Amino acid sequence: MTDLPYRTALIVGVGAGLSAALARAFSKAGMTVAVAARRADGLAPLAEEIGGKAFACDATSGAAVTKLFADVETAFGAPDVVVYNAGYRARGPLVELDPAEVERTLAVCAFGGFLVAQQAAKRMLAQARGAILFTGASASVKGYAQSAPFAMGKFALRGLVQSMARELSPRGIHVAHVVIDGGIRSERRPNPSDKPDSLLEPDAVATSYLHLLRQQRSAWAWEIELRPWVERF
Amino acid sequence: MTDLPYRTALIVGVGAGLSAALARAFSKAGMTVAVAARRADGLAPLAEEIGGKAFACDATSGAAVTKLFADVETAFGAPDVVVYNAGYRARGPLVELDPAEVERTLAVCAFGGFLVAQQAAKRMLAQARGAILFTGASASVKGYAQSAPFAMGKFALRGLVQSMARELSPRGIHVAHVVIDGGIRSERRPNPSDKPDSLLEPDAVATSYLHLLRQQRSAWAWEIELRPWVERF
Amino acid sequence: MTDLPYRTALIVGVGAGLSAALARAFSKAGMTVAVAARRADGLAPLAEEIGGKAFACDATSGAAVTKLFADVETAFGAPDVVVYNAGYRARGPLVELDPAEVERTLAVCAFGGFLVAQQAAKRMLAQARGAILFTGASASVKGYAQSAPFAMGKFALRGLVQSMARELSPRGIHVAHVVIDGGIRSERRPNPSDKPDSLLEPDAVATSYLHLLRQQRSAWAWEIELRPWVERF
Amino acid sequence: MTDLPYRTALIVGVGAGLSAALARAFSKAGMTVAVAARRADGLAPLAEEIGGKAFACDATSGAAVTKLFADVETAFGAPDVVVYNAGYRARGPLVELDPAEVERTLAVCAFGGFLVAQQAAKRMLAQARGAILFTGASASVKGYAQSAPFAMGKFALRGLVQSMARELSPRGIHVAHVVIDGGIRSERRPNPSDKPDSLLEPDAVATSYLHLLRQQRSAWAWEIELRPWVERF
Repeated sequence: MTDLPYRTALIVGVGAGLSAALARAFSKAGMTVAVAARRADGLAPLAEEIGGKAFACDATSGAAVTKLFADVETAFGAPDVVVYNAGYRARGPLVELDPAEVERTLAVCAFGGFLVAQQAAKRMLAQARGAILFTGASASVKGYAQSAPFAMGKFALRGLVQSMARELSPRGIHVAHVVIDGGIRSERRPNPSDKPDSLLEPDAVATSYLHLLRQQRSAWAWEIELRPWVERF
Repeated sequence: MTDLPYRTALIVGVGAGLSAALARAFSKAGMTVAVAARRADGLAPLAEEIGGKAFACDATSGAAVTKLFADVETAFGAPDVVVYNAGYRARGPLVELDPAEVERTLAVCAFGGFLVAQQAAKRMLAQARGAILFTGASASVKGYAQSAPFAMGKFALRGLVQSMARELSPRGIHVAHVVIDGGIRSERRPNPSDKPDSLLEPDAVATSYLHLLRQQRSAWAWEIELRPWVERF
Repeated sequence: MTDLPYRTALIVGVGAGLSAALARAFSKAGMTVAVAARRADGLAPLAEEIGGKAFACDATSGAAVTKLFADVETAFGAPDVVVYNAGYRARGPLVELDPAEVERTLAVCAFGGFLVAQQAAKRMLAQARGAILFTGASASVKGYAQSAPFAMGKFALRGLVQSMARELSPRGIHVAHVVIDGGIRSERRPNPSDKPDSLLEPDAVATSYLHLLRQQRSAWAWEIELRPWVERF
Repeated sequence: MTDLPYRTALIVGVGAGLSAALARAFSKAGMTVAVAARRADGLAPLAEEIGGKAFACDATSGAAVTKLFADVETAFGAPDVVVYNAGYRARGPLVELDPAEVERTLAVCAFGGFLVAQQAAKRMLAQARGAILFTGASASVKGYAQSAPFAMGKFALRGLVQSMARELSPRGIHVAHVVIDGGIRSERRPNPSDKPDSLLEPDAVATSYLHLLRQQRSAWAWEIELRPWVERF
């Protein structure tokens, strides 16, 4: 049973960090959860743990994304919650960047978001309901030196989300963007011992995604910005 | 009993709309709630309903705000949640505005927010914990024609909140700003019959204030923007 | 002779720095220039140098501002360019701020801007032409820790300008805001010897004010942000 | 002779509108001007008029952009001013968009901007001077309904520019973004007879590009937003 107005979630871009926390939180809240990543093999334990299903999908390929949604639909019905959490990041001085890496950053951060959003919206518009959530970063709103490709990709994703929010909200689909302004704690990246909670806890971040899903349509947020209490901003 | 990390709330600027909804939601969530407004007489029924207490306070007077916090402290202990929800709005063509009304708009929207925040922060810093929330409006981020005073007041309040968030978050105080981008439904302002949920439901808005209070400190929001699904933005 | 579409400028808030540079640049471009400050005595040499006139005016007083415009009008005719460049800044930890200083910061940074703008607009609307320019700061768009009053005042001023731009531009008045994001060089604040041009040169800033005045109405800017090449942002 | 600190300009993405106006303005200001577009044949008359040279270049191809800069360098020396003015725009309801068109919009609006900027920066860093200007649009800062691809492309370009400004300004290269918020007048798109100057005049826009080039480095703008006096914003 769930207190959420949604039943089935698809999370695209699942790794060990935020996406896994989202999958667990969504499952605990009563949703059936599908998870997708370029390599699905690592996802099997998570899928099993939450009673969901893992799918392999290169989010930058239109054909792969189309197949993913068809497969999820066959397994669970069309998802009424879709989260786009895939990311890729090329860094370095502007003049040293490999153009192919810049293209890839744009493809993963932004174009893949479009492909997934389009498939999601097609199904949700038929029901006039659903929620599509996107994960942003500090680079979504601030272009840092030596990080042009990530700024390009994340700014582009935010442009997509804002355009979608204007277009799809009046048709019953909640579109929202979560700006994660700080590092996320992980096994490989623990909190400094002298600075508790200075990295974002994935489970804490997940509560804001859940809150977005619980918002009643008269008071929807299209964006929320999260950062650790001690983060400079 | 409460699942919130806070115990006592003070809401300044209480009328029939959002503040009453906040008072009820906070009370229901287990907090003791004090409400304050320039005229306290209208608040008695609400205070009784939630088992709280009503106080009269002109938020633009330093002496009155100091007395308010002292009185609340005596009654319930120092509040660990404070909401500034007072507002005032002079409108009209720039050249026709009465300067006294412009001053008053600045005083109620912004200076009162400072006075309340300062008293709140003094008590919270001693405990290195607490939450101070502010209610913004569309005019917080967009200056509309024929509405210069409200833009001045609400922009100023947002500047205060952002500065406070930078200063006080690392000292354990959660400071946040809720941008209400649309009209709030009230008895005098019902939803149009052909546009359900086209005005913000006070209870729906209150859930986002509660969510802010529940956020764990590794993933705090300093701002969230709420609007009805059908609102143009 | 002037290539500008304007003839008479009034600069409010004149000190040794930016305002003096503006006065000289405007005069050199062919305009008659009046300068006003709370204490006019220091302005006499500048006024003489540019063949203009100095006025004493407390910009936070409605009566004083009304008198200023009447006096300028008598001397030179109604100004078709008005610059509001007055500022005041109280700093310190939020809990230690003197409320009277916060009020004063709001009064000088924002309310005075309204008073001056209203008098200016009254005269310009009659001609359906004119330009009103405002000086902003980093604090106009970013609220820094330990600097809440300045953020309040400068955010408020920006809200005023944006509202005025929406209201008055279609009536032929160019309203614009210059965000000065960095320190301005002065005699007391020279450039560090190892960092040339790391502080804004007043004369260099003035060229952007002049450019705003030269913009043709089909391509007006309402805001421009200036910073030294080496400034972090 | 020129009063500009630059000598040779390359404008990429030249059509009949803004780019032609820029080419003429730059030439008139004393610069040697190279113009480039996907199809160079239409540019011959413009190139001849300004005593410059036209180049064919698909800005989305790394090899083509590399060749363009080599050819311009051979003809005129390395350009110390580069303007990226190419654009492409797919529109329509999100669910009806052709993914290939979305990719193309990202490629022309954003990736091409990166390719050109990288080649420009390589040459300018060697001299520690130069200017790289980019043309933005309303969609650079606001994602409109039914226009997701353009929002993606223009947001991405703005992210690139902001990142470059942070990275390259301290190394002597002026990087700036001009947000054109409104329609540009052209032969095919004349001003409505009852609304003079309601579309941006290309020549008027060009004056702001020239102003950016004239700014002294202690007071650089990284962004300026231009709109007609009667444009709603």
